Parts: sequence; structure tokens; C-alpha cells
Amino acid sequence: MITILRIGHRISRDKRITTHVALVARAFGADKILIDSIDKRIEESINSTCYRFGGNFKIETGIDKKKVIKKWDGTIVHLTMYGDELENSIKKIDKEKDLLIIVGAEKVPPYVYKNADFNISIGNQPHSEVAALAIFLDRYLDGKWINRKFDGKIQILPSDKGKKVKSSLR
Amino acid sequence: MITILRIGHRISRDKRITTHVALVARAFGADKILIDSIDKRIEESINSTCYRFGGNFKIETGIDKKKVIKKWDGTIVHLTMYGDELENSIKKIDKEKDLLIIVGAEKVPPYVYKNADFNISIGNQPHSEVAALAIFLDRYLDGKWINRKFDGKIQILPSDKGKKVKSSLR
Repeated sequence: MITILRIGHRISRDKRITTHVALVARAFGADKILIDSIDKRIEESINSTCYRFGGNFKIETGIDKKKVIKKWDGTIVHLTMYGDELENSIKKIDKEKDLLIIVGAEKVPPYVYKNADFNISIGNQPHSEVAALAIFLDRYLDGKWINRKFDGKIQILPSDKGKKVKSSLR
Repeated sequence: MITILRIGHRISRDKRITTHVALVARAFGADKILIDSIDKRIEESINSTCYRFGGNFKIETGIDKKKVIKKWDGTIVHLTMYGDELENSIKKIDKEKDLLIIVGAEKVPPYVYKNADFNISIGNQPHSEVAALAIFLDRYLDGKWINRKFDGKIQILPSDKGKKVKSSLR
């Protein structure tokens, strides 16, 4: 089980970035996202994507992040540009255990750094938590997200020119 | 030379996503980003990152996207969830030529699909242009972005616990 914990989500400022984080989590093989602030709109939006495009991805908002971190039975990874090198850290992670991946927006409180088993950087340059999560999941799952089947009501078929969409939505 | 063309940028709605697209472009090895709408704020923000963190990344906003596409001397890739499979397409790209990577926000006009040499999907699931660009550049540059040197005034050093930052900014 791979769970994403999105912290520091400010509804007005971060709604699109957090939506992208959630969609990336789903598309790249995570099972669930937990978001600290209550945000019913983002829940609806992600649940609508799951309904149409398939899979068993779950979303919960308004969770107590400290409690989640404290009670986590498994490994905790925090993605941050201040972290250790990806290639170096990723091989130390025990893949048999449940994984919690913490993704912050802007400033992250010190207790996250302290309570993470691994603080990992996807390059030590400023970029994006969306990209960091995608690259991390890609490496963690050895690129296997690309073959994942979602069995959605909408299926998009690969096409070099034009859109090919199969839909069983009424 | 790798140039990103960001189209459909709406200043209020897309500012944070487009900023992430630009930062990912820089961090993952592109040379330049062109944005269709004029947006001085995003120019300032990206130029400030480049000043502090180094490298030669360039940004221009308010460009004529049709003209850029029409006059492009090299290969044009359009990233879209409706495109052909990444692994299938990427090996056909001639890496000797200059590359233009088009990244849309929401709906992309048909002439982009028609004028791209390659319409490529990073998985046929809805997710994020930020993640799509990161994964595409990662594969195109064989993961070498991770060793790129930026020689910035600020340098972040890998660290498993706590932040290690070298700065020559006054």
C-alpha cells in the first residue's frame, strides 16, 4: 500500500497543484491520498476522475497530519529538495512495508523532517512536488505504472494522430 | 537545444501550474520556455530562481504560438494523454535536432495535434502536464538531469536530516 500525505494545502492557493498531486498519485501507482485541510471540491473532483477512469484510488481530506505520522505502521518518506539523493536513498527502502510519502506545499514544519525515515530529494533544485512525486513513484515502482490497468468506464487508447476514446458512460 | 512551448496559459488560473512547468523544464534539462500569454510576474519569478540557483535557462512570455510552431526548425513533440505510447515514440526522435515540446493547459487546439511530429502520452490516464514533462525529459535525457551542474549562488547539498545550504548571496 502506498499512501500520499499532502500537507500545507491552502484551498484557494493550492487547489490546482494539490489536484495534480492527487492525479499523479493515482496514475503512478499510489493507493490513497490524505490531505490535511478539509476540501470537499477536491474530493469530488478526484472521485469523479476515479468513477470515470477506473481504479481503486481513495481520497480523504481534513485529516490530522501529526496523528497520521505518529501512528504510521511502515516507512515514511518525505520528498524535499533538501533531502538526500534519490538513487542513494531509494535502495534502502524496504518494499515489503506500507509506504507513506509526505508531499509539502511551500514550508514544511521541522517535525516532518524529524519523523520521516527518509528525506529524499528529486534533484537539489527547486521545481515541483508534482514532478517529484511522479519521478519518485516511477523509480520506486520500476516504471511499472505504465502498464497498470484501471478498467475505467472511459479508456483512452494510444494514438499518434487524433483522439481515440472508448466510453461506456451514458 | 530543448525548448518548451506552454500554451493556453491563463494568468489567474494557471500561474502556479505554469510556474511548476517552467521550474521542471529548468531542473530537468530544457534550455528555454515560451509562454503564449504575456505574464511579467512569471518571468520575474523564474528569472529570480535562475539568478539564485544558476544555469542558463531562459523564459519569454507573450509569444505567437502559431508562428513558433510554423517556423520551428527541428522536431515538435506534443505531450497529451491522447498521444502514442512514450516507449514507442521516444526512440523515433532524432536527438541531433532541436526539440520543441508543447505542453497545453486543458483543451489544446487541433492544429497542435496536426503540426506535432509526435503526439506522446505519459500513460493514457489523466494526471498533470508538470509530471508529464518531468517524465518525458527524464526519459529523453536518460536520467542525466540528476547530475547537471547549475553553479548557482545558492547550492543545496544532499542531506538525510536537516537542510544544508551554501549561499554566496549577500
